[in-house]
Amino acid sequence: MKIALSGIGKIARDQHIPALEASEDWELAATISRSGQVEGVEHFTDLGAFLEARPDIEVISFCQPPVPRYALARQALEAGRHVMLEKPPGATLAEVHDLARLAGERGRTLYTTWHSRMAAGVSVAKDWLATREVTGGRIDWIEDVKQWHPGQDWVFEPGGLGVFDPGINALSILTEILPRPVFLTEATLEVPENRQTPIAAQLQFTQGIEARFDWREAGPPTWNMEIETAEGSVKLIRGGSRVEIAGEAVETGPHAEYPALYERMAELVLHGTQDVDLAPMVLVADAMSLGRRESVAAFEW
Amino acid sequence: MKIALSGIGKIARDQHIPALEASEDWELAATISRSGQVEGVEHFTDLGAFLEARPDIEVISFCQPPVPRYALARQALEAGRHVMLEKPPGATLAEVHDLARLAGERGRTLYTTWHSRMAAGVSVAKDWLATREVTGGRIDWIEDVKQWHPGQDWVFEPGGLGVFDPGINALSILTEILPRPVFLTEATLEVPENRQTPIAAQLQFTQGIEARFDWREAGPPTWNMEIETAEGSVKLIRGGSRVEIAGEAVETGPHAEYPALYERMAELVLHGTQDVDLAPMVLVADAMSLGRRESVAAFEW
Repeated sequence: MKIALSGIGKIARDQHIPALEASEDWELAATISRSGQVEGVEHFTDLGAFLEARPDIEVISFCQPPVPRYALARQALEAGRHVMLEKPPGATLAEVHDLARLAGERGRTLYTTWHSRMAAGVSVAKDWLATREVTGGRIDWIEDVKQWHPGQDWVFEPGGLGVFDPGINALSILTEILPRPVFLTEATLEVPENRQTPIAAQLQFTQGIEARFDWREAGPPTWNMEIETAEGSVKLIRGGSRVEIAGEAVETGPHAEYPALYERMAELVLHGTQDVDLAPMVLVADAMSLGRRESVAAFEW
Repeated sequence: MKIALSGIGKIARDQHIPALEASEDWELAATISRSGQVEGVEHFTDLGAFLEARPDIEVISFCQPPVPRYALARQALEAGRHVMLEKPPGATLAEVHDLARLAGERGRTLYTTWHSRMAAGVSVAKDWLATREVTGGRIDWIEDVKQWHPGQDWVFEPGGLGVFDPGINALSILTEILPRPVFLTEATLEVPENRQTPIAAQLQFTQGIEARFDWREAGPPTWNMEIETAEGSVKLIRGGSRVEIAGEAVETGPHAEYPALYERMAELVLHGTQDVDLAPMVLVADAMSLGRRESVAAFEW
């Protein structure tokens, strides 16, 4: 099937394009972006022009930041295309509800992707926890914003989520693997005095689970999650690419998050179904509402 | 039917108790509160003690602020009681989803009330708008926090919502009367430098609707909403207690918000159904996530 990619920035180059090039389901037939393009692929700078010129391409994957993405996704759905969204699926919950309603009315697929859920260890952890009672847990999601979002001021603007941009990956895994839903009971948000969104956060959830997100750590990232039960704990390491149960490493399938997302999108389009899960985004909105804000040192790139 | 009232503070005395005393459906059979009580009504300081002592009282209405309310509501649902919640129904969206799930599992009624939706003019406005296209709108929700929440520091604490505590009333009306859902596109939140939550907010919604919430206005409150269409506008005045269509006042039924809520709760319990609508709360969570924060003058009572 032909697919177009909209928003050719860092995440498109790092993940989407390689995943599409390796895919047996998809042919990258066009790009739509104000700046970036891909050699050998037809390019449009404007979505409207693309929609008019290429009615044969029925599927569009949108990779730009959440704030500008909504209007484009709506335009695509209104033109009868299937839509796949990078995470987070929107700048607001209500706008994603709106897209889901529209996709439903038009009988098109909307897929709100959470790439971290496709990490190799996630399904292992989920299966193991399914029959157990969670007694506590600990998430450490710590990285260097200068490495992962170099110069990308939008992450510190309203709607850009700040440290919840990586943190929502942890929350997408947490909400996938736990047998019972969690919710937030307390949060502290550390906001640089010259920025709008948090650079660090401490979160306390039900089921005895706590999280620390921090964007100020130079060096290699820490993306670990450990969920405890009476029969030992399951530990997801390096964003779920490795998994240990009761201290023992467990064999997993290959680690291929974006290829798995595109495989899932192919299934959804073939079956004419949607996949819209907002649970990770609800937890972030709740943290933004309930969190106590503390002003911390100014941040500059 | 017998009912217990939990959280005997200002809103209970101003609204819930008079509504229950005037009701033909309900008998106020107990109160549960750390401090306040009602003369001639059996009183408990602890919910657990009440649940044990009075299994005959199957319905509890909770009026305390949202942060402490969740644990109590959950305890009541777990003990098999029907639950009615003051607005907003929780400090987080996820915790209300949790209560709704629990109520569903136990076959109990959960009613997330929005008292402003019961204002006399609301159904008139809704009926009139149902067949029309909205072209714009303006909400002004302006009052003096010192008059409406005297000394209540919790409104400025995380989870207390700040000016969205009254503003969510406007949003509950807006989401009730519009024929198509709205969502937020931009927001500015003015937060006193010594407080956690906004004292004022400017909101821009889709469909050309804008809102101004402000808690700093001495004197009588302004609670007005005007929704425009090609065939003139509908105006809800004084929180919806009066309504004008194309400049002409329209006759309404009596203005009795809390009596109408308790009438609805009686219906829900009799039919064993739920009424959980989180749309106003989603808009507030979205404003808290997407809003640009500006620091303004410190606030003291």
